[in-house]
Amino acid sequence: MFEGLNTPRLVLDADRVERNAARMRVRCGELGVTLRPHVKTAKSTDVARIAADGEQGPITVSTLAEAEHFAAAGWRDILYTTAIAPAKLARADRIQREHGARLLFVLDDREAAAMIGKEAAALGACFGILIEVDCGEHRSGVEPESEELLAIADTIGACAPHLELMGVMSHAGHSYAFDDRAAIAALAEVERHAAVASAELLRSRGYPCPIVSVGSTPTALFAAHLSGVTEVRAGIYLFWDLAQLSRGICAQDDLAVSVLATVIGHQRRGPSLILDAGALALSKDVGANRFMPEAGYGLVCDADTLAPYGTLAVTVVHQEHGNVPVPDESWFARLPIGSIVRILPNHACLTCAAYDSYDVLRAGEAVGQWPRTGGW
Amino acid sequence: MFEGLNTPRLVLDADRVERNAARMRVRCGELGVTLRPHVKTAKSTDVARIAADGEQGPITVSTLAEAEHFAAAGWRDILYTTAIAPAKLARADRIQREHGARLLFVLDDREAAAMIGKEAAALGACFGILIEVDCGEHRSGVEPESEELLAIADTIGACAPHLELMGVMSHAGHSYAFDDRAAIAALAEVERHAAVASAELLRSRGYPCPIVSVGSTPTALFAAHLSGVTEVRAGIYLFWDLAQLSRGICAQDDLAVSVLATVIGHQRRGPSLILDAGALALSKDVGANRFMPEAGYGLVCDADTLAPYGTLAVTVVHQEHGNVPVPDESWFARLPIGSIVRILPNHACLTCAAYDSYDVLRAGEAVGQWPRTGGW
Repeated sequence: MFEGLNTPRLVLDADRVERNAARMRVRCGELGVTLRPHVKTAKSTDVARIAADGEQGPITVSTLAEAEHFAAAGWRDILYTTAIAPAKLARADRIQREHGARLLFVLDDREAAAMIGKEAAALGACFGILIEVDCGEHRSGVEPESEELLAIADTIGACAPHLELMGVMSHAGHSYAFDDRAAIAALAEVERHAAVASAELLRSRGYPCPIVSVGSTPTALFAAHLSGVTEVRAGIYLFWDLAQLSRGICAQDDLAVSVLATVIGHQRRGPSLILDAGALALSKDVGANRFMPEAGYGLVCDADTLAPYGTLAVTVVHQEHGNVPVPDESWFARLPIGSIVRILPNHACLTCAAYDSYDVLRAGEAVGQWPRTGGW
Repeated sequence: MFEGLNTPRLVLDADRVERNAARMRVRCGELGVTLRPHVKTAKSTDVARIAADGEQGPITVSTLAEAEHFAAAGWRDILYTTAIAPAKLARADRIQREHGARLLFVLDDREAAAMIGKEAAALGACFGILIEVDCGEHRSGVEPESEELLAIADTIGACAPHLELMGVMSHAGHSYAFDDRAAIAALAEVERHAAVASAELLRSRGYPCPIVSVGSTPTALFAAHLSGVTEVRAGIYLFWDLAQLSRGICAQDDLAVSVLATVIGHQRRGPSLILDAGALALSKDVGANRFMPEAGYGLVCDADTLAPYGTLAVTVVHQEHGNVPVPDESWFARLPIGSIVRILPNHACLTCAAYDSYDVLRAGEAVGQWPRTGGW
């Protein structure tokens, strides 16, 4: 069905996205929490609507470009989880005013809180704030239940009404390193406890903390319970990828996104196929290889069925070339020059970022394109 | 000078580009060859004009999107060095017709040549062809002076006037793996000989081969001579990057492109700075690390002077976060939250691909923006 199309291009199986989305909605219903999908993977209003079963509910974004794109399209409750810099507030204020959206920021530093508060006051703006609590990844966030947590809360409180403390958030990003469900469940409990205990401490000091936000896809799936949590953030579950598959977090037929590529050469030394999908089309992420060393830069699959050709993988990438070793030259007849294949990527967030649209499949047929946003 | 700007963003020192461009023009003049700059790094008509000292001379492209962009802007002699697939010919034909450009393709397979010839005939199109000769990288190309070379030439000849054999090309892409100038000079001679000897063989069979094209930046710089070669392809020399610096191919103050980022957090565990430039803003390429293990995902520099802060580097990237370990917390006062820095990237081609424009510096001052093309 892809004959004659320009390649490389990004293909999205919307049926799989719907199934993946429904599963996480059911899961969050069972856990008794609101789902706040992270749109940094899909960067698509069409996908975000599927995630929320047609609604424009709460979302998580990683860039102000995403915030602006979704606010302009009607989303109103937007959590920006990259720490905000003072120079970005004017744009954030404009996004709120022009589109009637409400932006929530995360902070983990009292000096930053004072700077953000001062800038918000200068703009005459009002922003909701979550304090980020480190639950072990040590990328960002303050110690749970710490003096610093309280100091940040007091700094935010002193900036009212320009800053409004809405609660706390934690993110167990290190959960992506594990392929053991018990280990992930343990991290989920650490993530939950860090957020809930911190919220309790803040409440004891008079801060109501209506939002207690946790999440990563693995911890959302394998948490034993999320008592005290109000919302879950997750994104990759909508698409899945080889990194997640390699950790046993999803099944192969959950993978919703792939790169369509053309065989542009046969290299007899090797032997190997040359594809027109290289470092830019696939990204240089090899995150699946830790648990799936055969993944290379992506598994090569039948273009129509997305069934892998055994363990055929892109093992070397140049800017626009991908090299796929094959067992023998019989593959040259099986996949002649001009053939198309699909490639399952290591890390959907990074691969998708190279494209500005998806070719959408429904019931295995291409039915149109969905735009993506990007940049900053 | 960058205060208040949205980050991350891509900064280009146009003075350095001019100096880098002039040096390669002089070098090609000394070698007695035409310079056909590769625009896959810059993807910018402004930079391509600098490369050719204001002219719209011959260029090399890696995608049809680049071919289309440059043809629409007035370039006429465009060599597309990714092997062409039959399904892409209709677009290529349109680019030639609409813009009066002349596209040159590379082929390394007789069956592909027959398919391309058949498709060109069906379109009523005429394309120039170079046969790609493998000079040791084994990515693509036929054996120099081989029977297969002659078979491809005959296939192309049989497709006249829709295909016109214009000569041969070779590319010593493996030259980027070396930091030894003698080794690179030896590869340059292999690259030169593969192309020249193959052209001689073809001429002996009646194919005039007016174009004998070689190149990579390292081999262009360190070849002892290029006797018999008509043109050189090179691209990264316009920008340079840490990968090239790590191999001793350029000097640090030749590096023309950098990523402007903001300090958005201080992590006391570590300790480390958190920047708003991660895997998407920098790419996951770590090609410099082989010879410069301290490079990480990029060296952190003073935003105004581009002088590195010692060996401060981005050592961990998430999608939008970059983590920069610092020796001690005194760095938090030196680079408070909200500060801006510039990051020298590993591989300019991949880092630049995430952006759709450059912030251009002249004499150290920001003077405007230049657009970039992208995608496929």
